[in-house]
Amino acid sequence: MNYRAVDTAAEYVARLDTGADWRAEIEALADDVEADAAWFTALGAVQDAELWFYDQDEREYYPIEFDEPLEVASCVGNVSLLDDERFAHTHAVLSDPDGTTYAGHLNEATVWAGEVHMRVFEDELVREYDDTTELDLWL
Amino acid sequence: MNYRAVDTAAEYVARLDTGADWRAEIEALADDVEADAAWFTALGAVQDAELWFYDQDEREYYPIEFDEPLEVASCVGNVSLLDDERFAHTHAVLSDPDGTTYAGHLNEATVWAGEVHMRVFEDELVREYDDTTELDLWL
Amino acid sequence: MNYRAVDTAAEYVARLDTGADWRAEIEALADDVEADAAWFTALGAVQDAELWFYDQDEREYYPIEFDEPLEVASCVGNVSLLDDERFAHTHAVLSDPDGTTYAGHLNEATVWAGEVHMRVFEDELVREYDDTTELDLWL
Repeated sequence: MNYRAVDTAAEYVARLDTGADWRAEIEALADDVEADAAWFTALGAVQDAELWFYDQDEREYYPIEFDEPLEVASCVGNVSLLDDERFAHTHAVLSDPDGTTYAGHLNEATVWAGEVHMRVFEDELVREYDDTTELDLWL
Repeated sequence: MNYRAVDTAAEYVARLDTGADWRAEIEALADDVEADAAWFTALGAVQDAELWFYDQDEREYYPIEFDEPLEVASCVGNVSLLDDERFAHTHAVLSDPDGTTYAGHLNEATVWAGEVHMRVFEDELVREYDDTTELDLWL
Repeated sequence: MNYRAVDTAAEYVARLDTGADWRAEIEALADDVEADAAWFTALGAVQDAELWFYDQDEREYYPIEFDEPLEVASCVGNVSLLDDERFAHTHAVLSDPDGTTYAGHLNEATVWAGEVHMRVFEDELVREYDDTTELDLWL
């Protein structure tokens, strides 16, 4: 296992803009505070969403689309550098009016309301192509 | 997007009392340590639960009730001031004996066992009415 | 409610090894950095999984097994001492290609890719048998 001690440079709370993209907002926060490595958790609600599922055999992401309001019951992710840009790797659990849940890798979603806590680390994390999984991973 | 740097004043781990209300316990912790702004994650199990789903068209919360034991697979939330009282905005993912999940805004739930990590921030967060979403939001 | 202030001794990010066990990897990290108390959140994907549901009447865990690739949409847990060994109490929300979710207490799962943030506390947490729930709880 690869691991690394990190030092927290700063931490932030953010309220995401209604109508903006959930993940783009998190990346905008990272850009604003120049976070090349960060960890976040979040909660809120979205107006629609596109989740991705990674097919471990085909080595490809497949989208799952939702065109309806959903709660963001959980959101956990991190910011690192991918091809020299800040990328917010974002997993989320969404839920509908019945409490039924849908979850996976969150590619995009239109914010209804979003509250984020982000810890920014002093050292950067860089994603690189991993031959085994064909994913971009860090460390 | 609105965001703010926060400084952590203290952090706590808590074990929620069996039979007490999940969210009230978190608010009791916040009251005890005088936390006017905090972020928490938690896990555990409950004996029953009431989730809320916010209808973005009607601008109203609708309850979803569960009168059965459920695991708390994830719980993410924050504490801030709402009408001068400490309010724990709490989202949770619950699961039943089949692993089937239910999720949303957690209004109340009777604790079976609960483990919480809370970071308390130095500056307060205050919720105010937001015209766009008709929710009480901070920043 | 029992609670305790904790001081963070160090924090880590880790990438779990593909093919290893998810929870054993987290415990290996705790062992490596000598963490007798820690809190973590994580995300990623697994190749299979065994979730446990605690039957509050029977006072027993029942397993729910999955022999298929799943996303780890959320993972929240903590490390403490149980019978003098470091134990990673781990709850997770998993999802399949349709976005359908399964959640509970994660006993084991084969890592596809895993990213963890762990905060290590200075003081230890020790689990002891609790008569009311017949679970091993701390504080």
